Amino acid sequence: MTRRLGWATLALLLVTTPAFADEGMWTFDGFPGQRVEAAYGFTPDAAWLDHVRLSSAQVGGGCSGSFVSADGLVLTNHHCVHGCVQQLSTKQRDLVEHGFNAKTRAQELRCPGFDVTRLEAITDVTEKVLAATAGKQGEAFQKARAAVVAELEAACAASEAVRCDVVDLYRGGRYHLYRYHRYFDVRLAFAPELQAAFFGGDPDNFNFPRFDLDFSLVRVYEDGQPAKVQDHLQSSPAGPEAGDLVFVSGRPGSTRRQLTVAQLAYERDVRLPEVLMRLSEVRGRLYGLAQRGPEQARIAKGTRFSVENAYKAFRGRREALVDTAFFAKKAMEEDALQEKVAADPKLKAQVGDAWGEIARAVATERDLRFALEYQEPGRAHGSRLFAIAWDLVRMADELPKANAERLPEYADARLPVRKAKLMSNAPVYPELEEALLAFALENMRRELGADHPFVRAALGAETPEGLAARVVKGSSLGKVAVREALLKGGKAAVSASKDPMIAWVRTLEPWGREVRKRYEAEVESVVTRAAERIAAARFAIYGTEQYPDATGTLRLSYGAVEGFPYLGQPVPPFTDFAGLYARATGKPPFDLAPSLARAKAKLPLDQRLNLVTTNDIIGGNSGSPLIDKEGRLVGLVFDGNIYSLGGDYGFDPRVNRTVAVHVGAILAALRTAYGAGHLADEMSPP
Amino acid sequence: MTRRLGWATLALLLVTTPAFADEGMWTFDGFPGQRVEAAYGFTPDAAWLDHVRLSSAQVGGGCSGSFVSADGLVLTNHHCVHGCVQQLSTKQRDLVEHGFNAKTRAQELRCPGFDVTRLEAITDVTEKVLAATAGKQGEAFQKARAAVVAELEAACAASEAVRCDVVDLYRGGRYHLYRYHRYFDVRLAFAPELQAAFFGGDPDNFNFPRFDLDFSLVRVYEDGQPAKVQDHLQSSPAGPEAGDLVFVSGRPGSTRRQLTVAQLAYERDVRLPEVLMRLSEVRGRLYGLAQRGPEQARIAKGTRFSVENAYKAFRGRREALVDTAFFAKKAMEEDALQEKVAADPKLKAQVGDAWGEIARAVATERDLRFALEYQEPGRAHGSRLFAIAWDLVRMADELPKANAERLPEYADARLPVRKAKLMSNAPVYPELEEALLAFALENMRRELGADHPFVRAALGAETPEGLAARVVKGSSLGKVAVREALLKGGKAAVSASKDPMIAWVRTLEPWGREVRKRYEAEVESVVTRAAERIAAARFAIYGTEQYPDATGTLRLSYGAVEGFPYLGQPVPPFTDFAGLYARATGKPPFDLAPSLARAKAKLPLDQRLNLVTTNDIIGGNSGSPLIDKEGRLVGLVFDGNIYSLGGDYGFDPRVNRTVAVHVGAILAALRTAYGAGHLADEMSPP
Repeated sequence: MTRRLGWATLALLLVTTPAFADEGMWTFDGFPGQRVEAAYGFTPDAAWLDHVRLSSAQVGGGCSGSFVSADGLVLTNHHCVHGCVQQLSTKQRDLVEHGFNAKTRAQELRCPGFDVTRLEAITDVTEKVLAATAGKQGEAFQKARAAVVAELEAACAASEAVRCDVVDLYRGGRYHLYRYHRYFDVRLAFAPELQAAFFGGDPDNFNFPRFDLDFSLVRVYEDGQPAKVQDHLQSSPAGPEAGDLVFVSGRPGSTRRQLTVAQLAYERDVRLPEVLMRLSEVRGRLYGLAQRGPEQARIAKGTRFSVENAYKAFRGRREALVDTAFFAKKAMEEDALQEKVAADPKLKAQVGDAWGEIARAVATERDLRFALEYQEPGRAHGSRLFAIAWDLVRMADELPKANAERLPEYADARLPVRKAKLMSNAPVYPELEEALLAFALENMRRELGADHPFVRAALGAETPEGLAARVVKGSSLGKVAVREALLKGGKAAVSASKDPMIAWVRTLEPWGREVRKRYEAEVESVVTRAAERIAAARFAIYGTEQYPDATGTLRLSYGAVEGFPYLGQPVPPFTDFAGLYARATGKPPFDLAPSLARAKAKLPLDQRLNLVTTNDIIGGNSGSPLIDKEGRLVGLVFDGNIYSLGGDYGFDPRVNRTVAVHVGAILAALRTAYGAGHLADEMSPP
Repeated sequence: MTRRLGWATLALLLVTTPAFADEGMWTFDGFPGQRVEAAYGFTPDAAWLDHVRLSSAQVGGGCSGSFVSADGLVLTNHHCVHGCVQQLSTKQRDLVEHGFNAKTRAQELRCPGFDVTRLEAITDVTEKVLAATAGKQGEAFQKARAAVVAELEAACAASEAVRCDVVDLYRGGRYHLYRYHRYFDVRLAFAPELQAAFFGGDPDNFNFPRFDLDFSLVRVYEDGQPAKVQDHLQSSPAGPEAGDLVFVSGRPGSTRRQLTVAQLAYERDVRLPEVLMRLSEVRGRLYGLAQRGPEQARIAKGTRFSVENAYKAFRGRREALVDTAFFAKKAMEEDALQEKVAADPKLKAQVGDAWGEIARAVATERDLRFALEYQEPGRAHGSRLFAIAWDLVRMADELPKANAERLPEYADARLPVRKAKLMSNAPVYPELEEALLAFALENMRRELGADHPFVRAALGAETPEGLAARVVKGSSLGKVAVREALLKGGKAAVSASKDPMIAWVRTLEPWGREVRKRYEAEVESVVTRAAERIAAARFAIYGTEQYPDATGTLRLSYGAVEGFPYLGQPVPPFTDFAGLYARATGKPPFDLAPSLARAKAKLPLDQRLNLVTTNDIIGGNSGSPLIDKEGRLVGLVFDGNIYSLGGDYGFDPRVNRTVAVHVGAILAALRTAYGAGHLADEMSPP
């Protein structure tokens, strides 16, 4: 009893803490101005909101940005244009390592296939969508919805410079039509050295204090001229002080804040720790592989980076769930919703035992998890040859079927991308393949047990290393022509193939279908249907008092400049250039970028460099402007701290922090370290 | 609300399940015969209990065993005599690999420094201890208690063949005097090949189904003759059937079933997953090291085995804590105890806010945990050179102090063992040392953050690899003479040493004292004092209705032959020889021991080989006899399943299982595979 009372009291305390007011990734047409007023004494009016929205940009595949001059200059992160910088590099000039500075507009270089968009208008089309789908169920419903969405989008998008999306908010509660202006001629104006943008590497990734100049400047062009952009952000070089109100405008990718407590407990206790153990061990093995020689280090590099980044991301999510107060708050919110549902007979009937259904599905998922992981390996254990063989074996069965009968990943709409990936001539590294496959097989035996029928089928009398070596060394799937022949030859060719990887995967693939069928029937579909009913109840009760989960569309969050505690010690909210130089050891990843090393005597050492704020963000917000209440640019979001990763499940104002570059540091670096005063002047006239 | 009700109902359901009756590692003088009667319709009487107790043995450092013939034959596990078998091996005959079979008693080989004891008598000395310590506090209490214990033990032990221990039960609630008969001439009679005992290796360790002959036979001698042993177990070759009542008599090492829910949540959410992530990564790195060549594989072998075993053990413990029903039961038990305490004004006053004090100490531990891990590294990051340097630096400060003023690990009583370890000429492998140290340093930077003052002090401007290589390669502490000189030279020599490992550890050591002091003051002492009050209340309320936590002394548990569910599938309780042969792949660790490979045609394939039971055991029970209600030997305990490791925190009758070798398999193997029919006949006359 004592404990429950203790928890309840604690959670109550948290709920009534004003800081909770900072939560939310709000749509621009549903922004809670009155909450900001209550917390900070400022209400953004319609003109303010329109100006900020029209000054915000979606950049490239999954980033955010902002217009920062009337001549189409766009500020975003270095890591958002990394791909472009790499593509523009040549053997003679490595722009990733050395950076890029267009002294004149004529020197700006176009980023291939890169676009920038601006959200021009939001229209509520809920009634139209509902009218078109009324009374329909199952497949008929899906088709009717797809038809009305396609019709609405087509009627809206008139040219290459306009894009329209129907956005599904509140998990089906609302449909909005988003109209974007699209710039498809985007040119690189400036990028610092990678080492200036990513000083501190993996140890500092998702951490603070931080000392990164993770910014770049691109310019949008129309008709071959810099685009004239009416709404853009003025820079405020002094930036905010601790406690000041700041906004973040950007496109958070996705959140899952409506998971039930049963699902969260599964994430906390089972899924995340098990993923982290696997990532830890494979990280150790890849380290060992890289130690074997420079060639091994080279081939392992990309996978190592992915594994390290994934490790941090999962670890950060776990931190939120193992925070007692965070978990208690999620439980209290669920209790409150359940009570409201129980008090409303109509809702009660609609929701039924949705929570119970999910809890039982989670228990089934727990029993199925290892079988699913190894029998239907979505990530192909990280092995490219395995992935190729798997796709060829599956396609041989799937492609002859009618489109609607296929597994969804082999539907016509997805085939072009899938085939392009399958036929990519990206290099295959047998030593890396073997290492990843041997680890997966050993782990499979460990987790399913040596007596599991699938383990017996997959391993036979071989050892994990022996099998991995045999199927990798003997395979000729590294050759694109071999893959082409097998794809063209279809079922007959695949069935007849003597390639050991193909032959092995042929025996495994039916096991995947079997467990996947069970998972979809007993877990996935049960959870989806139950979660929809809970979401509908939540929307019926709270309406737009709550923000919708992030969906990769433009959102606005508010917060304040504020540090956070780490291991019981306070972390202050600002760093400065002096800190960067004090921290540089000369050894990777703490070595200075050459331009910054040279500029040490000239740069203002007390200039603030990075800062943290309480804004609620998630992956996809990279490149978002940090904006003060005057609507001026004061910073550039480039990361979250480790706790911000827990934002997938919920926002914790005590520790979730946005990490940004101070705009004053960007201007100082452009002027003093990089000889790019012309761009600084364009952003902030002297 | 729904969820809580759900949990409570579930937990209630579990509490009333009859299987819960199988819980407990009971003392022989406090055995709950009526519970066994209620569950299985059988009450062991005093004669039965005396016979089983006198037939039970404590074997070697930390194992159990049983007397199985009138001529002093003792049955225990192969892994309990592994050290002896290794010591008796020579270059010419590797008894670990090839096994050992004394055809005559004259061929039996004495195990150096090995003893076997039998518990002869238990006397309650609680009153004497309490009388001697009445009214005393703190150090005076400690001294008075030590004095009365020493006096009681000395008065009891009259010769080399008698050992007496005062045992503290119920964490200070009761004191009993245990008198043992001690055999110190112990000779190896039989051991199979290691591969017969450990078939399945790491993948099968702590798992079931299992196919191991993990047994050995030693014989106790007195006056140069096989000892005459009146009480010994008759073998019952047929063994038990599924559902049959069985007992385990042995010496479980230690359990911590009285941790509070706050402590259990910390174990579940923080300590175990973090330990497991570290173990996983170091396991991966060691795998990578071993792949570099046969010499690296050789030097990494021992550490790899330890890491793999620890990984499984921690993983098993975690499984218990992430089981929703298990955790709910612990919470319910705590609630029930708190309610009873609250209802008794005297107890309430005595206990005070013990649970709250522990919860707050746990929160502090959470903040301190990384600092403690790296500033005061108890396991020296696995590096022997680091451990040596640490000991030398600490001893230079500690040894000049008065005994009572020193850190406890440097008290006079502990110095001989400590110095022997320090001066051991066990080989040091620089490449392994570097690998372990580099990993620890990288992890330190990751977990404490690059800006933590200790990280700055420890790493300076070096990389983890660079620093590890410098201090290991430059150190001459691998030479025993160098250590001797530094120990002899004391503070002056250590301060003047230019050895890079010593110089580095000199700078680190004060950070260890600082964090340790804080940990002891704010965590350890708070938890100890509060836990004592809770334990006293528990004993006052439940008395001997509850069994005391395991303390390495003789205990009796009861249960039944029963399978368990794994990943939702039932695991049957028996395996047989046919299963062994079906499972053998010919490749390690699933290759057959030569004797078993040769005997395939002759062994009875349907002979049961291993079995699982619901008995409540823990580490230290290895070698315990499995006994039927007639008091006959039916099996030999050699492991627990993965869930049994959760027995550290509590017993879960649904999944915790004891793993044993069937006595029929032992007899058949002796007779048919090993040409040791004379020993089988001695155990079980034909």
